[in-house]
Amino acid sequence: MKKTGALFIVCGPSGVGKGTVCKELLRVKPEVKLSISATTRERRKGEIEGVNYYFIGKSNFQDMIKSGGFLEYAEVYNNLYGTPKKYVLEQLDMGYDIILEIDPQGAMQIKEKFPKGIFIFLLPPSMKELRNRIISRGRDDEDNIEKRLNCAYKEIDFIKEYDYYIINDDLSNAVNSLVSIIEAEGCRVKGNVDELIKMYKEEV
Amino acid sequence: MKKTGALFIVCGPSGVGKGTVCKELLRVKPEVKLSISATTRERRKGEIEGVNYYFIGKSNFQDMIKSGGFLEYAEVYNNLYGTPKKYVLEQLDMGYDIILEIDPQGAMQIKEKFPKGIFIFLLPPSMKELRNRIISRGRDDEDNIEKRLNCAYKEIDFIKEYDYYIINDDLSNAVNSLVSIIEAEGCRVKGNVDELIKMYKEEV
Repeated sequence: MKKTGALFIVCGPSGVGKGTVCKELLRVKPEVKLSISATTRERRKGEIEGVNYYFIGKSNFQDMIKSGGFLEYAEVYNNLYGTPKKYVLEQLDMGYDIILEIDPQGAMQIKEKFPKGIFIFLLPPSMKELRNRIISRGRDDEDNIEKRLNCAYKEIDFIKEYDYYIINDDLSNAVNSLVSIIEAEGCRVKGNVDELIKMYKEEV
Repeated sequence: MKKTGALFIVCGPSGVGKGTVCKELLRVKPEVKLSISATTRERRKGEIEGVNYYFIGKSNFQDMIKSGGFLEYAEVYNNLYGTPKKYVLEQLDMGYDIILEIDPQGAMQIKEKFPKGIFIFLLPPSMKELRNRIISRGRDDEDNIEKRLNCAYKEIDFIKEYDYYIINDDLSNAVNSLVSIIEAEGCRVKGNVDELIKMYKEEV
């Protein structure tokens, strides 16, 4: 039976642990493909081109916008981030499930262009804990921390736009939930009705 | 966060292995409750009252129909089967997930009365294999085997009414899929939006 892959969009406020959860998912379920975003922001220590991001210049990025090369793009804290469309569509067609880790702005653009996507919102155990996580990763000054927290409050208000939520209280629990969602979505009748009926009728 | 349980309806043609899959599910996930059906059919060897079924007389069964005591009921091969409503609603309200193993006739009645249910269709690996399974359990004569297979063909045509399908080629794979579906449905945003928003806003 020919199956198309599904696109899983993992979203959530800055600092909630999207990157860690997705990285661990790829370890336990290596058949899932990761969509690599393009960004104009500077490379952080330890980040690898084509693994963490495609690091591209602002004018290249704007050319890709004009030619419709992005499934979504957004400006976040003065940097551009985007999802190159071609790779995602090719992998889905080949039957692979794809995971895409993005911020809520990008997620809502994807929802418009690709409503078949499965939208997952990662939540912190509490707002207090989110603050602790942002502080402990040590990337932001006090002003930025407040900016991120205010943003998080607003983003949670849009949770109704998502299909699933996962509370990231414990990495392994969160990853297990994500694996269950991916496997359950692989059992969806919708989109496979004709193929399923054909499969049993052709035997006669 | 207060959560309501979900009702999982496991359905599929006669002989596909619904009973075995549900039994194994309860072993690996004992927190799930099984809905016990009432039936007027005779008890088979090894079946226990209140565990496999509530075995009740025809007139008792008809009284319960009249008083609206069933979530669904159906006549299958000259016997009445039904799902007593009270137990299911109570357990859901207490936050338990419930699994209900029924034939496709009953499933469609439940869908009408309880559209929030999660409908799962268990499929055989092939119709040939379904025939083998029906023969090997040794309960049916040739006529009945054909009746069951014809019925199965018709039932598969209604697969679009279901949310999920599971191909029961291997017991442990089928049970894993069922576990994933139950866990993924526990992460659904729908029905929990207000509770989720409240949870984060109340901290302020």
